Amino acid sequence: MTRLSINTPRLISEINQLATFSDAPAPAVTRILYSDQDQAARVWLRQRILDAGLTMREDALGNLFARLIGSDPTLPAVGTGSHIDAIPHSGKYDGVVGVLGGLEAIRALQEAGIKPKRSIELVMFTAEEPTRFGIGCLGSRAMAGTLKPAELLAMTDSDGANLDDLRKGAGFTQSLDTVQLSPETYSSFIELHIEQGPRLERDKLQIGIVTSIAAPATLRVVLHGDGGHAGATLMPGRRDALVAASEIVQDVERAAHESGSPDAVATVGLLQVHPGAVNSIPSKVTLEIDIRDTRLDSRDGMVDRVLAKIEEVCERRKIGRDVEVLNRDDPCQSGPHIIKAAESVTQELGYSYKKLVSRAYHDTLFMAQLCPTAMIFVPSENGYSHRPEEYTTDEEIARGVEVLALTMAKLANE
Amino acid sequence: MTRLSINTPRLISEINQLATFSDAPAPAVTRILYSDQDQAARVWLRQRILDAGLTMREDALGNLFARLIGSDPTLPAVGTGSHIDAIPHSGKYDGVVGVLGGLEAIRALQEAGIKPKRSIELVMFTAEEPTRFGIGCLGSRAMAGTLKPAELLAMTDSDGANLDDLRKGAGFTQSLDTVQLSPETYSSFIELHIEQGPRLERDKLQIGIVTSIAAPATLRVVLHGDGGHAGATLMPGRRDALVAASEIVQDVERAAHESGSPDAVATVGLLQVHPGAVNSIPSKVTLEIDIRDTRLDSRDGMVDRVLAKIEEVCERRKIGRDVEVLNRDDPCQSGPHIIKAAESVTQELGYSYKKLVSRAYHDTLFMAQLCPTAMIFVPSENGYSHRPEEYTTDEEIARGVEVLALTMAKLANE
Repeated sequence: MTRLSINTPRLISEINQLATFSDAPAPAVTRILYSDQDQAARVWLRQRILDAGLTMREDALGNLFARLIGSDPTLPAVGTGSHIDAIPHSGKYDGVVGVLGGLEAIRALQEAGIKPKRSIELVMFTAEEPTRFGIGCLGSRAMAGTLKPAELLAMTDSDGANLDDLRKGAGFTQSLDTVQLSPETYSSFIELHIEQGPRLERDKLQIGIVTSIAAPATLRVVLHGDGGHAGATLMPGRRDALVAASEIVQDVERAAHESGSPDAVATVGLLQVHPGAVNSIPSKVTLEIDIRDTRLDSRDGMVDRVLAKIEEVCERRKIGRDVEVLNRDDPCQSGPHIIKAAESVTQELGYSYKKLVSRAYHDTLFMAQLCPTAMIFVPSENGYSHRPEEYTTDEEIARGVEVLALTMAKLANE
Repeated sequence: MTRLSINTPRLISEINQLATFSDAPAPAVTRILYSDQDQAARVWLRQRILDAGLTMREDALGNLFARLIGSDPTLPAVGTGSHIDAIPHSGKYDGVVGVLGGLEAIRALQEAGIKPKRSIELVMFTAEEPTRFGIGCLGSRAMAGTLKPAELLAMTDSDGANLDDLRKGAGFTQSLDTVQLSPETYSSFIELHIEQGPRLERDKLQIGIVTSIAAPATLRVVLHGDGGHAGATLMPGRRDALVAASEIVQDVERAAHESGSPDAVATVGLLQVHPGAVNSIPSKVTLEIDIRDTRLDSRDGMVDRVLAKIEEVCERRKIGRDVEVLNRDDPCQSGPHIIKAAESVTQELGYSYKKLVSRAYHDTLFMAQLCPTAMIFVPSENGYSHRPEEYTTDEEIARGVEVLALTMAKLANE
């Protein structure tokens, strides 16, 4: 097998450069969809792609496609990619390793003089993170057609700004009808990502090959109580939205503990109090709840239990509620031939590895509706992710890029 | 007794004009200390005071003093006043009725040709609400000397902006050493205010005469847990700051219910989650807790119970914490001669009334450290306050102004 030369210093320097486009002080990274920093990061990324001599297009949501043309451009391509948006106060590797690592993989193939039969295409997905619109994988959902143009047109952020206005303001003015991809676009899709968990590090392994992605569900709950002066309104007549919310927060934790599933996780990551003054009774609370498991029945059992608890608490406390299930997606299984290709490349390179389940949510979950998929993981120090301390060594990233490049080369000649 | 002519249309028009200086859409009012809207409201108020021909001064924090000079200007004055700052999404009467009603009371005395012996002084206190600096009655605390210049210099808002820079930027550039008043400034102080509770309305009474103010305590608690990806971090190792916070919210409510005191109230009005993304475990939560009772021992019992609960939860969940008792003030008793004066005026006017305790926190609590004080309450529809629905009828406001004016005239001739 050809060994590739991965230009690790170039790649790491690019990861560090991209981290400077941020609304949080380093080492934290905050990069929200269509923000000034996101726009500046996109300008910078386009230049890297043009420097690599790739063909580029962007769709009506800002999903970006960079293609190395194969010797038979009529064949479905091999896809790779990830995202560059970052939740508030997170780190510099989540998503970015799959975008800049994917670019480096393509450059390594070019520099080794490898000319694949199928084209190889890097995708930078718009908004894998749910920060702005409350739904993860916005770009890939739309590409897969599970999020329709009419639904996109109806979406607003928490300030009431319209997705359609925002994306046009960011320069993506085409019709939203053009975002959905045909199933003939890709023959396979493979995403490089940091593990965001401690398993590879704990087992001292270099590479993870993802066999399935856990099924996430997201709820948004708005509780409507009664406000008033915290000093003058006596306890008996109160309808305090925050005390109701705190019962729900407790139950979300218990739902995971009592599910009986070791992979069950349930989290209230967002809780906003209105009006939010020390001497004012909370009249409105917004919660966003994230519930996952590798088993669909267990995940749905937790969702149903939490929904029932919300009803019980709100009935007892006379609290109004708007409950939305923002998504309740099915798990996905990786394509056996991609697992096999990645596994044989990893073995030939002599890297230690294991096959594992991804408990985190990725664009690959939606790409799986278009073509066979898989993912390659590299270790995360202490399992940290979505925080400034997120870290993967330069060598570990380079190994992931090498496995990705050679797996894509193999798939591109099938 | 002279009956006064209260110019109710003028007063109500002014209350409505002042409500337009707001960072929230009407009918909600949001007016934060030293914000552009607060500054614009101050410009407008100065003009009303100058139009009334009063002598005006402002101190180094923006406390504003408007004086009707008495026939013996060397005597301590009779004071009245309240505040015009408004917590987010509150109403247009809280505080404002005491400032514009106090101004109308002075104008009514002028227009009736009454020349009091003592001067009568209207005070507009800076920041009675704790919104910006987390402490209520900023201006009156400083005037009473319970908040020292060195403490003021150390204060910052939640964005890290310095109180000293902000007040200078707002045009109040004198030395902070000049804010504290001498006990000889006032012979008595009497504040007109909406009740912010349902008692007068329920008993169909027109006037409340406040005999004491309940003792408030405020805690600020910052919980430090561990962040991470909500999908990839399994439950057993988690240190989720929000789940810990939700136990504390529950206990704050229970503390009031289990205190055995019918006047006990305990509220978590502010709770902020960091980083605040649906797929991120909360690593930091800030809570502000407000605990009050008319009995000091009961109030302190609740504070101690909540402090103990915070320790217990944080030990069990391995959560770091910074706990600050921002204030823990003593209740105040009204001056018997002021109660007597207000009571006899109210009786002579033929208005129905009762004597009652104020469960809400007012600048009068701190003025009581300088001179004898009391308060006059007018009814609040449904007891609502700190919300857009706050409402007191024009006639009820006018009755309160009439009682205030004649009580001040009586006190000013003592």
